[in-house]
Amino acid sequence: MKLATLADGTRDGHLVLVNREGSHWALAADIAVTMQKALDDWTEVEPRLRARANQMASGIVPLHPLRTERLMAPLPRAYEWIDSSSFLNHVRLVRKARGMELPQALESEPLVYQGGSGSFLGPRQGIPLSDESWGLDFEAEVCVVLGDTPQGIQSKYAEERIRLVTLCNDVSLRGVLSSELGKGFGYFQGKPATAFAPFLVTCDEVQPYWKNGRLDRDILCTYNGELISQANAGEEMHFSFPDLVQYIAKTRKFCAGTILGSGTVSNTDGSRGTSCLAERRMRETIEYGEPKTPFMKVGDTIRIEMLDDNGVSLFGAIDQEVVAV
Amino acid sequence: MKLATLADGTRDGHLVLVNREGSHWALAADIAVTMQKALDDWTEVEPRLRARANQMASGIVPLHPLRTERLMAPLPRAYEWIDSSSFLNHVRLVRKARGMELPQALESEPLVYQGGSGSFLGPRQGIPLSDESWGLDFEAEVCVVLGDTPQGIQSKYAEERIRLVTLCNDVSLRGVLSSELGKGFGYFQGKPATAFAPFLVTCDEVQPYWKNGRLDRDILCTYNGELISQANAGEEMHFSFPDLVQYIAKTRKFCAGTILGSGTVSNTDGSRGTSCLAERRMRETIEYGEPKTPFMKVGDTIRIEMLDDNGVSLFGAIDQEVVAV
Repeated sequence: MKLATLADGTRDGHLVLVNREGSHWALAADIAVTMQKALDDWTEVEPRLRARANQMASGIVPLHPLRTERLMAPLPRAYEWIDSSSFLNHVRLVRKARGMELPQALESEPLVYQGGSGSFLGPRQGIPLSDESWGLDFEAEVCVVLGDTPQGIQSKYAEERIRLVTLCNDVSLRGVLSSELGKGFGYFQGKPATAFAPFLVTCDEVQPYWKNGRLDRDILCTYNGELISQANAGEEMHFSFPDLVQYIAKTRKFCAGTILGSGTVSNTDGSRGTSCLAERRMRETIEYGEPKTPFMKVGDTIRIEMLDDNGVSLFGAIDQEVVAV
Repeated sequence: MKLATLADGTRDGHLVLVNREGSHWALAADIAVTMQKALDDWTEVEPRLRARANQMASGIVPLHPLRTERLMAPLPRAYEWIDSSSFLNHVRLVRKARGMELPQALESEPLVYQGGSGSFLGPRQGIPLSDESWGLDFEAEVCVVLGDTPQGIQSKYAEERIRLVTLCNDVSLRGVLSSELGKGFGYFQGKPATAFAPFLVTCDEVQPYWKNGRLDRDILCTYNGELISQANAGEEMHFSFPDLVQYIAKTRKFCAGTILGSGTVSNTDGSRGTSCLAERRMRETIEYGEPKTPFMKVGDTIRIEMLDDNGVSLFGAIDQEVVAV
């Protein structure tokens, strides 16, 4: 099933069910008023949502046309947003661009950072930018939303903690990140609000693409109208989502609604394109001696989505324009 | 006024008002069911809570004896927990202990990291530890809780966004942090769940100690029954809380309930003691050539509090024991 959050003037909006085609929604707030509430009470709520989804498919419940502009981020705010950098090709290219060494344990130990989670952007919200010299970039990623996850959980038990899957645009300020890396405290100012795709969907809904704890499907990035990435999000994800869960849970537990990201989807095959501008600029530097593509400016647009074999958008599209603030 | 969260079997507990002495509580959940809800709707909720607090002081509303064991962290989970390292003496000692260079912009640019905020420890909850080699340490800090804070806010307007003040124990795993610093992605496994003092209090409640955006009062740390710190939390806090708000809000906004920490309270005057073991060990190394105090082991206890001139505990005491998991 597919879930979304409809804006209603409140901070957390209200929960709706969305049909497979993403064209219509049905009431779900009578089952759980918000997405967080659904995740908090998942054991009781999930079967009731599934029953409603079946009724939707049978045409028994009233359907309403979905206007994506009315959707908030599925979790408009979350208790934790943890992003990894699990596509090693991305780490290699970006570090090379910065002239930095690779972390010693690159292949054995995930890179993760704690992201800000108090105020996310919806799939059609503008990306606010007040200074173009900050080097605004998009990063197309796959994310999962966890249920309650105990400290010390092992990878083999972690997959069952994954409740929902989606895509995000992990907005980055490249010019700010570089200086933050040297301080050792991690990213902060360089990571403004992250944007999320319209729908959070259950793993069974993305079959047959969910394999080995990864989403084996191409992520499509269209930048200013040009398709610049169709990188595969499966095989080259070095650490699977269950591996990442084991890593983050080593010293603490996580509450339902924790979001965990794959990091920028990136393939070694250059013909697949790039899912962020930093990689594109690095590839240009290798080819031409200097980057050709500037970072994002006010008015630039980025669309991120993933289609099934029939061309149906699995999570709906992130489609954002950079706006001046 | 003083606010707290009483455990009731739900994830977020329910809101109560606490009298000045911290001995009794009165119902507040009929005004705002949880602490987060009170912060979400602060403009409408605050005057009603203040009216109830006045009724408490006048003996008009029923009072119930407060058992601190029944309190959760005032925000059992929060949407953001951002910790700084604003006592530069702490940064200097800890980096020296690690043999690391100081950040270049130490005095002009705050060090902040994004902490995990999905599952906090209450003031009497045990600190879970599964491996003593991780180098468990406490860190006594002052924290503020923000109301909605817009991107780009300037320091001079930031103080009015501070809703509430408290103390925390920013639990750290020193052996894990060291290796994480080198990766550049910030702290993650090295920062397990943070513990908070029983009460969140308004700034007027901590007069005359709230000065220049800092809490000018000694923080008391009692480790295994021995008072080992009475460091002043005011003057040597290099960046004030409003300065920190301006820094964190440069590239994004924050939602009500965001928690912001001072970092370990630390004074250059060694006779004030230390508010974490890492500093104590560094001072021992300077004096004796090696550290004498080991990191925390199962069964060790740490008590952190702050008293007013009459000996009343301003925020109630954090009083935790390390427990094996």
